[in-house]
Amino acid sequence: MDTVHDNLTAYPVLLGRESDDIREECGVFGVYGIEDAAVLTALGLHALQHRGQEGCGIATTDAGRFHTERHLGLVGDHFTQKDLLSRLPGNAAIGHVRYATQGGTILRNVQPLFADLNAGGFAVAHNGNITNARLLREGLVESGSIFQSTSDTEVILQLIARSKAAHVVDRLVDALHQIEGAYALVCLTEGKLIGARDPYGIRPLVLGDLDGKPVLASETCALDMVGATFVREIENGEVVVCTDGGVQSVRPFGRRPAKPCLFEFVYFSRPDSIVQGKSVYDVRKRMGLRLAQETKPLADVVVPVPDSGVAAALGFSEASGIPYELGIIRNHYVGRTFIEPTQQIRTLGVRRKHSANRGVLEGKRVVLVDDSIVRGTTSAKIVQMVRDAGATEVHFRSASPPIAWPDFYGIDMPGRDQLMAARMSLEEMAAELKVDSLGFLSVPGLYWALGAGERNDDAPQYTDHYFTGQYPTRLVDHDRSASQKDHQLSLLVEA
Amino acid sequence: MDTVHDNLTAYPVLLGRESDDIREECGVFGVYGIEDAAVLTALGLHALQHRGQEGCGIATTDAGRFHTERHLGLVGDHFTQKDLLSRLPGNAAIGHVRYATQGGTILRNVQPLFADLNAGGFAVAHNGNITNARLLREGLVESGSIFQSTSDTEVILQLIARSKAAHVVDRLVDALHQIEGAYALVCLTEGKLIGARDPYGIRPLVLGDLDGKPVLASETCALDMVGATFVREIENGEVVVCTDGGVQSVRPFGRRPAKPCLFEFVYFSRPDSIVQGKSVYDVRKRMGLRLAQETKPLADVVVPVPDSGVAAALGFSEASGIPYELGIIRNHYVGRTFIEPTQQIRTLGVRRKHSANRGVLEGKRVVLVDDSIVRGTTSAKIVQMVRDAGATEVHFRSASPPIAWPDFYGIDMPGRDQLMAARMSLEEMAAELKVDSLGFLSVPGLYWALGAGERNDDAPQYTDHYFTGQYPTRLVDHDRSASQKDHQLSLLVEA
Amino acid sequence: MDTVHDNLTAYPVLLGRESDDIREECGVFGVYGIEDAAVLTALGLHALQHRGQEGCGIATTDAGRFHTERHLGLVGDHFTQKDLLSRLPGNAAIGHVRYATQGGTILRNVQPLFADLNAGGFAVAHNGNITNARLLREGLVESGSIFQSTSDTEVILQLIARSKAAHVVDRLVDALHQIEGAYALVCLTEGKLIGARDPYGIRPLVLGDLDGKPVLASETCALDMVGATFVREIENGEVVVCTDGGVQSVRPFGRRPAKPCLFEFVYFSRPDSIVQGKSVYDVRKRMGLRLAQETKPLADVVVPVPDSGVAAALGFSEASGIPYELGIIRNHYVGRTFIEPTQQIRTLGVRRKHSANRGVLEGKRVVLVDDSIVRGTTSAKIVQMVRDAGATEVHFRSASPPIAWPDFYGIDMPGRDQLMAARMSLEEMAAELKVDSLGFLSVPGLYWALGAGERNDDAPQYTDHYFTGQYPTRLVDHDRSASQKDHQLSLLVEA
Amino acid sequence: MDTVHDNLTAYPVLLGRESDDIREECGVFGVYGIEDAAVLTALGLHALQHRGQEGCGIATTDAGRFHTERHLGLVGDHFTQKDLLSRLPGNAAIGHVRYATQGGTILRNVQPLFADLNAGGFAVAHNGNITNARLLREGLVESGSIFQSTSDTEVILQLIARSKAAHVVDRLVDALHQIEGAYALVCLTEGKLIGARDPYGIRPLVLGDLDGKPVLASETCALDMVGATFVREIENGEVVVCTDGGVQSVRPFGRRPAKPCLFEFVYFSRPDSIVQGKSVYDVRKRMGLRLAQETKPLADVVVPVPDSGVAAALGFSEASGIPYELGIIRNHYVGRTFIEPTQQIRTLGVRRKHSANRGVLEGKRVVLVDDSIVRGTTSAKIVQMVRDAGATEVHFRSASPPIAWPDFYGIDMPGRDQLMAARMSLEEMAAELKVDSLGFLSVPGLYWALGAGERNDDAPQYTDHYFTGQYPTRLVDHDRSASQKDHQLSLLVEA
Repeated sequence: MDTVHDNLTAYPVLLGRESDDIREECGVFGVYGIEDAAVLTALGLHALQHRGQEGCGIATTDAGRFHTERHLGLVGDHFTQKDLLSRLPGNAAIGHVRYATQGGTILRNVQPLFADLNAGGFAVAHNGNITNARLLREGLVESGSIFQSTSDTEVILQLIARSKAAHVVDRLVDALHQIEGAYALVCLTEGKLIGARDPYGIRPLVLGDLDGKPVLASETCALDMVGATFVREIENGEVVVCTDGGVQSVRPFGRRPAKPCLFEFVYFSRPDSIVQGKSVYDVRKRMGLRLAQETKPLADVVVPVPDSGVAAALGFSEASGIPYELGIIRNHYVGRTFIEPTQQIRTLGVRRKHSANRGVLEGKRVVLVDDSIVRGTTSAKIVQMVRDAGATEVHFRSASPPIAWPDFYGIDMPGRDQLMAARMSLEEMAAELKVDSLGFLSVPGLYWALGAGERNDDAPQYTDHYFTGQYPTRLVDHDRSASQKDHQLSLLVEA
Repeated sequence: MDTVHDNLTAYPVLLGRESDDIREECGVFGVYGIEDAAVLTALGLHALQHRGQEGCGIATTDAGRFHTERHLGLVGDHFTQKDLLSRLPGNAAIGHVRYATQGGTILRNVQPLFADLNAGGFAVAHNGNITNARLLREGLVESGSIFQSTSDTEVILQLIARSKAAHVVDRLVDALHQIEGAYALVCLTEGKLIGARDPYGIRPLVLGDLDGKPVLASETCALDMVGATFVREIENGEVVVCTDGGVQSVRPFGRRPAKPCLFEFVYFSRPDSIVQGKSVYDVRKRMGLRLAQETKPLADVVVPVPDSGVAAALGFSEASGIPYELGIIRNHYVGRTFIEPTQQIRTLGVRRKHSANRGVLEGKRVVLVDDSIVRGTTSAKIVQMVRDAGATEVHFRSASPPIAWPDFYGIDMPGRDQLMAARMSLEEMAAELKVDSLGFLSVPGLYWALGAGERNDDAPQYTDHYFTGQYPTRLVDHDRSASQKDHQLSLLVEA
Repeated sequence: MDTVHDNLTAYPVLLGRESDDIREECGVFGVYGIEDAAVLTALGLHALQHRGQEGCGIATTDAGRFHTERHLGLVGDHFTQKDLLSRLPGNAAIGHVRYATQGGTILRNVQPLFADLNAGGFAVAHNGNITNARLLREGLVESGSIFQSTSDTEVILQLIARSKAAHVVDRLVDALHQIEGAYALVCLTEGKLIGARDPYGIRPLVLGDLDGKPVLASETCALDMVGATFVREIENGEVVVCTDGGVQSVRPFGRRPAKPCLFEFVYFSRPDSIVQGKSVYDVRKRMGLRLAQETKPLADVVVPVPDSGVAAALGFSEASGIPYELGIIRNHYVGRTFIEPTQQIRTLGVRRKHSANRGVLEGKRVVLVDDSIVRGTTSAKIVQMVRDAGATEVHFRSASPPIAWPDFYGIDMPGRDQLMAARMSLEEMAAELKVDSLGFLSVPGLYWALGAGERNDDAPQYTDHYFTGQYPTRLVDHDRSASQKDHQLSLLVEA
Repeated sequence: MDTVHDNLTAYPVLLGRESDDIREECGVFGVYGIEDAAVLTALGLHALQHRGQEGCGIATTDAGRFHTERHLGLVGDHFTQKDLLSRLPGNAAIGHVRYATQGGTILRNVQPLFADLNAGGFAVAHNGNITNARLLREGLVESGSIFQSTSDTEVILQLIARSKAAHVVDRLVDALHQIEGAYALVCLTEGKLIGARDPYGIRPLVLGDLDGKPVLASETCALDMVGATFVREIENGEVVVCTDGGVQSVRPFGRRPAKPCLFEFVYFSRPDSIVQGKSVYDVRKRMGLRLAQETKPLADVVVPVPDSGVAAALGFSEASGIPYELGIIRNHYVGRTFIEPTQQIRTLGVRRKHSANRGVLEGKRVVLVDDSIVRGTTSAKIVQMVRDAGATEVHFRSASPPIAWPDFYGIDMPGRDQLMAARMSLEEMAAELKVDSLGFLSVPGLYWALGAGERNDDAPQYTDHYFTGQYPTRLVDHDRSASQKDHQLSLLVEA
């Protein structure tokens, strides 16, 4: 520990944190009116693979019939064969990649979900989380609905099925008026591709153009992958209906200020995506730059935790003048869960995902830069690995503020009792991580990096509760569950 | 052709028919209160495998949680592994084997089907066919139910989900009052195994006892397989509820005469099963015996079409004094669909399922005995094979009357336009089959073989419409579909 | 036990035995000069499937290149897909089905085996057993050969590779002069299909004609399957070479009397095959007929153990006048190994392969007829099952003499210490099987059934050591292994 | 094009090249005397996965028996299950990862290869290429050896099998005296782990220590993975024999100067490996640094082609003062071959492996840095992608000299006619790549980066023929094949 960090403002000396590899969520994609729709969707999902590696699915429609395939695993494992178009024919398609959850991964939760409505077939893929899904589900089951999955997304589908409205868009709007929380939806019905974003625009959704045909995607990088041009973001609370006649916009909630999720910038989105008109890579570099201004230590090298800390580390190096070096090598062939080796082997110090690049670290005072710290366990292992490789000092820097509050909008984050920054003071965290100093970007620093000016504490410009505890919506299911025993969504233990 | 068949009564000279291999239906099984319930169910289904080779599934319940596994293929392909009990824990289970349908075989139709009701989990397996399923389904979809399958069985499940009754047995009875047709059901819910048989008892269901615990099965051979003793048949219109307190009987439809399906004796049931108190093997031998009395030709050998014609051929031989010989050998390794060979190979006369035993057939006047003739195409091939092997005459005998009317109660039979006996006169059939004579058992002969006395033409003792055109119930969906265009059950083309 | 069996000659009263399901061996098939060679070979192997269910393989040659596929499992599991001809192109092919061995089943032993010789490619499939294979293998390894398998067949291949002869047929003859034992070989090399049978003709091989092109097969039923006509048996000690120029015969061993294996008649061959000019079905019926003459008890019904005892039981019934009934039903869906149920279930009396047909057995004195008894364990279970079904007496009859000597020519039979008839007197066997009487066909009776006249004890007309202890050849490896410790063929434990 | 590159020496202005993704080779690993040997080997191979993704295999020995598993695909796909140690028991193991070859990937070529020698079992894994393998193979086949694979490695195994020497190490040395070319071998026999490196040490092999037990690996990063400490490199021409008694060294070729392959520094080795006592990362940074000195253009950003160009780009940025930016994002979920999309989609500009980070590139003069250029096709696509993203100028820099000569020592490189630098002048290359300037590191620059002083043109300190045309050994097979028609190694087209 040293005493140079006197320039820290919001989060004084000795901050630091890590990447726990579990904060993925989902990605959605859709095209309309284009030949080879399933192939384009497979490519689009491939570009969104970083948003979810647990499962993937595609639904297409062809002359009124629907075709779906849903799998556990990666897009490249299932949707690369030559016969893809014969398996999934049609010129309109939607797709989904799904995040890794804590519990058992089950196929029946993999999306898109489908229903035969009396108005025709309807498929839906969803990124986000419905915060009153459990309450709605109980009411639906009470009145005779049978659920196929434990996914909150199916609540939307069942509400659409129950709607008395005549037209499918009206049925969807009926359902949206009942649900709360965060969602970016793509839906497929005969003659229509529909996109929808929740009233605060918490989860992202963009519109692209491919030879005059509409494309919907969670991120612009998926548009780039299929050669589509970026048109605009779907606005918060907007429903877009793509038909042969073009793209029409419906606004069931009127207009209100957006509050997009900050974590898209911090971690989720690919660096080459453009979110809210901003380059994610650029925002992350600015986060690192500001982090250096706020928390620069005396050190010899800046080393990113790959890949999540790379952009911030470049910014940190630029602002601090401390050279940037690749002191940690990421093994790109990790993907399948590896053997849990025997205790003997475990204690030998096996590393599988990251390796220390000893030449860069030995005898050096190292600044480790990562995007964030969640539980702190992975960060602690990386710090130890860097020390084992001969670093004389390790200064950990997080390019986002301390995460002290759980998320309920589709980010797979542990409960409060497991969040390091909720459990410990900064000094305790530094001690736990065994670092010489620990520093976090401040919340004002993060808003500055986004070019967002000062945070409006009464109505924040972004969804930022993980840092601040200030949630954008009610949390119906969460508040109810505090007062009642855990009620299982399904009694069926199966795929 | 010869002229000796002057003793034929109901169906005079020149009759004949075949086995088309597509008349299978389903089998169900259930146990309650017994350790290793899943293993017993797997064994029971294995004994019922002849009733359906398309798919198989098992559901168990363990401390209120339900576990299901459903597969395409045979029981022996999926439920033989050592870990079966860990995959399907619990001391109550139901299972299902499913028949081969004309269209695509799809996993989502494989049973047992399951629903989370607000009253708890509920699994159901069904043998039979609901004759007003389509009409009920349309109403349910209209009011917001989402179907997971295209199976008529799911209608029962959805009706149970929609029932306002408080107790699960009452909900089931609610549903049974709405459905028409044929069914033998086994249902599993927490603390209960339920069996039900339709008001006419068209499809079979028996109750067994295994160490004081109840077992339900489509046939007694499944009781034998698991070492259970036969207790009684479930009666027509009866619902039995098995709990820790024992087996209770509910009769929602009061009492009325039963009309069990004759085809259980003719084809479905295993020869070692006891149906309606009668040995199936014995009934079939008597069918062959009476058939010989009615249609005995001048011939040298009686040859069964294996395996369906074996028992009748033994009876025919006994009654006619013509020696019984195995002139056709069945290949037991058929099971998977074999290559559709090229035309060149096809014309070479390839036979895969049956082979002629030339030594027995050459130079002989052969009586071929099969259980029935459906389309006539397989019979024609067998006749040709027997001729190619050197038979000088071929006399085809069907141990059941001509099939001239389609079934709507769970037998997978072609439409009337494809039933040979509906399309042709006896002479035409004989000519089409290229036989020297053709003979069918008469309907009175069949009733005699069953020891049923004379058929009561006003209220037949058995369901026998395939021979007589006299259906036991209304045919709601069938009558509607005659007047309206085909409406697809699901727009989803998928497993 | 009763005293009526006073007419037994060779094997007096109280004999009996069973079917142990492990006596399968192999089947071979080959075609030359015919389009779709791989499809024909798949069909031919399918007809030979009863000779081996452990593994199957096909090799083809196309313009000098060779293509092989070898699998564990049934022909119908692997060689039925539409792309078979693109996977195995060419107009010449050989194939093999392999028996189930006691030890681990390993893919590298599945045939055809292949070698790149400097003279070109060479594939071989073998039915039989080389009795000096181990000695030859040791010499080959000593001088630097590397074996791919533990199969005795590879010794033949390695000897061919080492031969200094210029032409491939001469190389094969070189190899045949070094090996001893039993073999029916089909070999494929560029421009040639070669068949060979050992000097005594112990294992079978027949020649067929398909549109003027040669077909080789273990049994005639495979010729029937592909529509080929039977031409003749390959003679003992004959090598046939099929080329575009026709079929030529080579006789490297001169002429000597044949000694074909009796077990082809007793068990292996399909009843519809013609072996040595005799119908297998007919021989088996005559075995049953003579068996009745030798061992007829007082009884009510003759019941075959299906399927191996069916033909003999028909003969037994005919000769004895005791009615033939199907008192045991075989479950045709057995094929995969079934769960080893828990002890509780085991003691419940579970039967999977055979079921008793109670109606036929109850209160009856039953003659059970099977083809043979090996260990006696299966027979004992069947006897018990028949007793449990209510039979008042059980008289077991074996349609072949007692098996008291092991085989070394390709029949998978247990060692002498496990052969029931080698361990026990007839009385002991009857007691062990818990039968009221036990009877075996006598050796003279078997020769009579074959129409072979009296057995020539100095030079028996058939290979019959399992009954007599008189082996047709030296047993080099066996005699050596008696004097030395077991030496493993391979140190590699792998497929 | 501009004129600033006047400081280029060996390769003046307008140079440039690319990465074609096909230059992988193999990796080997071995441990002796350690519990869980298979798990350690799986982990070691995982660290070497970058050296070959086509196939992987492990062989272990346990009490004289050998166990092998060989698979197509990644280590993580096959060797991560819990039962690994029961499948591959033993306390000694070797393993192999295999490169992607041009032709069909076939399982029978996946290593380790195994032979039962009369002296016991012997397994071998090989990195490198035998330059007289074909000639040796022809002789071996001529004299009766049967090859299982088309791998040059099997020649070594067959020579060992043919050796008359009594001890296995002498047999290996016998074989090594006959082969020419490049090899790093690990061999497993009962009681011994053997490592060997060719006389010039072209392919790498290092010795590590894990709790006093020997570990052999292609690179030090595999030692780090299993927690072993680096002991030393195996020397050129050295054979090390690891037994329970320790590690002994044999030098069959005496001592001569080493000539390690430069491509280990340029491309193969992981940046965190230490090769020849040098940090690979550090050497690559120095290559970039010198490259900047030799070829610095006027530009705004230095952008690496990830991941191969990253270290050199950092050095280039440092030396040139031009900021380093991640202008190209690599998609880490590529791995499986992706659908070949239809032409329509292809022309839409689909990118799957790399994506442009538009924010960094737009309006900029970009220096693209990659490790090398082989065919130039991938480089051209990347240049186009960077231009499409808005770069105003693209200056391509290769951190190694022009590759103008093919390799025959285990690097999978195309023939001379496909090497861009062999076909074109620098100006032509620049035009083909459509770059504003193209620059290569000079050969003296490369030697400088290695700290090797000046190149000794008579006896170069490194194997560097791909840049210079000066091969370290004779090329027997290559020279023969120039004078004779291509002779296939095997007539068998199969796995």
